[in-house]
Amino acid sequence: MVVLCPPVVAVPEHIITQAETIDIGQRLFAGHPHLKLATRMIENTGVRKRHLIRPVDETLRDTDFGHRNQIFDQEAKTRVPPVIFAALDNARLTVADIDAIIFVTCSSYSMPSMTAWLINELGFRSDTTQIPIVQLGCAAGGAAINRGYDYCRANLGSHVLIVSCEFCSLLFQPADQAVGNLLSDGLFGDAIAAAVVRGDREVPGLLLQARRSHLIPHTEDWISYEVMSTGFHFRLYKGVPGAFRDAMPVLAKFTSDEGHDLPDLDFYAIHCGGPRILDALRDPGGVAPEALAMSMATLQDYGNIASASVFDVLRRIVAAGPQPGQIGLIAGFGPGITMELAIGTWQSGHRTTIS
Amino acid sequence: MVVLCPPVVAVPEHIITQAETIDIGQRLFAGHPHLKLATRMIENTGVRKRHLIRPVDETLRDTDFGHRNQIFDQEAKTRVPPVIFAALDNARLTVADIDAIIFVTCSSYSMPSMTAWLINELGFRSDTTQIPIVQLGCAAGGAAINRGYDYCRANLGSHVLIVSCEFCSLLFQPADQAVGNLLSDGLFGDAIAAAVVRGDREVPGLLLQARRSHLIPHTEDWISYEVMSTGFHFRLYKGVPGAFRDAMPVLAKFTSDEGHDLPDLDFYAIHCGGPRILDALRDPGGVAPEALAMSMATLQDYGNIASASVFDVLRRIVAAGPQPGQIGLIAGFGPGITMELAIGTWQSGHRTTIS
Repeated sequence: MVVLCPPVVAVPEHIITQAETIDIGQRLFAGHPHLKLATRMIENTGVRKRHLIRPVDETLRDTDFGHRNQIFDQEAKTRVPPVIFAALDNARLTVADIDAIIFVTCSSYSMPSMTAWLINELGFRSDTTQIPIVQLGCAAGGAAINRGYDYCRANLGSHVLIVSCEFCSLLFQPADQAVGNLLSDGLFGDAIAAAVVRGDREVPGLLLQARRSHLIPHTEDWISYEVMSTGFHFRLYKGVPGAFRDAMPVLAKFTSDEGHDLPDLDFYAIHCGGPRILDALRDPGGVAPEALAMSMATLQDYGNIASASVFDVLRRIVAAGPQPGQIGLIAGFGPGITMELAIGTWQSGHRTTIS
Repeated sequence: MVVLCPPVVAVPEHIITQAETIDIGQRLFAGHPHLKLATRMIENTGVRKRHLIRPVDETLRDTDFGHRNQIFDQEAKTRVPPVIFAALDNARLTVADIDAIIFVTCSSYSMPSMTAWLINELGFRSDTTQIPIVQLGCAAGGAAINRGYDYCRANLGSHVLIVSCEFCSLLFQPADQAVGNLLSDGLFGDAIAAAVVRGDREVPGLLLQARRSHLIPHTEDWISYEVMSTGFHFRLYKGVPGAFRDAMPVLAKFTSDEGHDLPDLDFYAIHCGGPRILDALRDPGGVAPEALAMSMATLQDYGNIASASVFDVLRRIVAAGPQPGQIGLIAGFGPGITMELAIGTWQSGHRTTIS
């Protein structure tokens, strides 16, 4: 029995509104042939504000890949530990109880992973397994939950800490005139999430029941990074929202295989990459529009916070007070186009004799 | 019951000898204050030759991070598929049987991972789980085996394909004068390895019995990449071989916990990062020098081929014809300093009633 404990999410203190984003875009990219298109796309995201690790003027300064990674490193070392400790509290565990750390980001690359620093500085055990994930983009939130689920099923009674650290503002590339890049400048935000997957049933959380992976065929170029000396450059194919029409039957089949109907689930923690992606998951036969309110709220308040997104949606669901026995779906989407899905039942966490 | 099937290793066709490496070093780094030291270190590696994906003169040309990644991509797409098909043959499986792909490299970064391309182009199922690992360096060979082991224990009867694609020659940084970088220019080689982890007992291979992770405390800066606009720059702290004196008791404790004595195991598939690391694992109380012959052979013939190394050592052990019931240790070491260990029993693969 494996429980995903209530996640913790922190967003940094520097805020940029959509109006400010658009003003800056008009100034920086004046004369760009696709500025109008990019502006309209940003307006259509529904993102009202985003949180950034640095003040806007610093965020806009161009720099190279090495410096971007250094900033990630410094900011993560300051900002991640409190989120971890809060997530451990939610799981009623301490660092000594953790058997594996899954550290997820798509906004930096380092060798070794931040997992080594965390183990050394926060006092995790030397035999903690390090599972860094940096190539699954926004799908990595779902992937982290599913790898944690697998880890706990393989190693009975174990505890896995998931950390998602997404400083997407480090991907701002002022010299990049691609439309996908311009859109990303107005869509992605910074956030940190953490949650524990517990291989037992003694705490409130989502009792995981099944998981599934899926790759939408022949879409590997649709969401991607162009990796250059300047760092990661976000690339988006215009067909992406349409591809998510192929995602809906996968969600439906997965929930059906697990004995439920997709429209009848009690809650949905679905990654909110953009509003048109959510549109593709709606009726007929899909998810009721109001059931995606939590996903939309994350997008509106924080922007697309990549792998941290599913944790923020789940955090909002938990805050709304799910009832024991209610059934929910987790869905991470990202480059590939990769889907990582899980289904579970909310439990109040009173000790039971079922094991 | 989870079996690591016999691995397949391929090395590219361009060969550079140690003598050629040293000649080139004398020419490129003439006047460098540490050239003598670096030359002596390269001589002491015991590496006789290495295999490269490109001719030496192309390998030596400086380029940026983007171009390095493009070369990786092109070469991997050509060279990896035959190795995968050979590994599937060894496991008596086809692409349709595979449930997860673990793709490991520390010589490139891409988004999405090569896993998406492999699934699309080689015909793996759409529900194949993608597990890319790029931040565990040379330890990732052991980590891949252990994550495959966990996956199969969590998902009974499943099959995991491991692919290690290490084109370390893409890390050649001619403008980098650090001693660790100079050493890396003479130590690392290119190779591809693949192996299947089968969640059943019907094939010859290593029946995995237990695994362990370990981080040597406060050594996260000892083996690392400096990540810059030019790509990855290898950094090595001179204390590294000494740190492996702390590794030996971890190996001993792990084998002892599993009911065996470290010196008494039948074979050892230990990552051969360099000769002084192997020295640190030897007697007293450690591994007999002759038991490390296969690790030394990989190092001598191919250089340090990073995560592919443990698979090549195991390939040599399999070629030597292990007896059913013989017990062996797998040990991957890498940045962190991270250790990923597994222990298993060789089985001939006749169908048994034990399950």
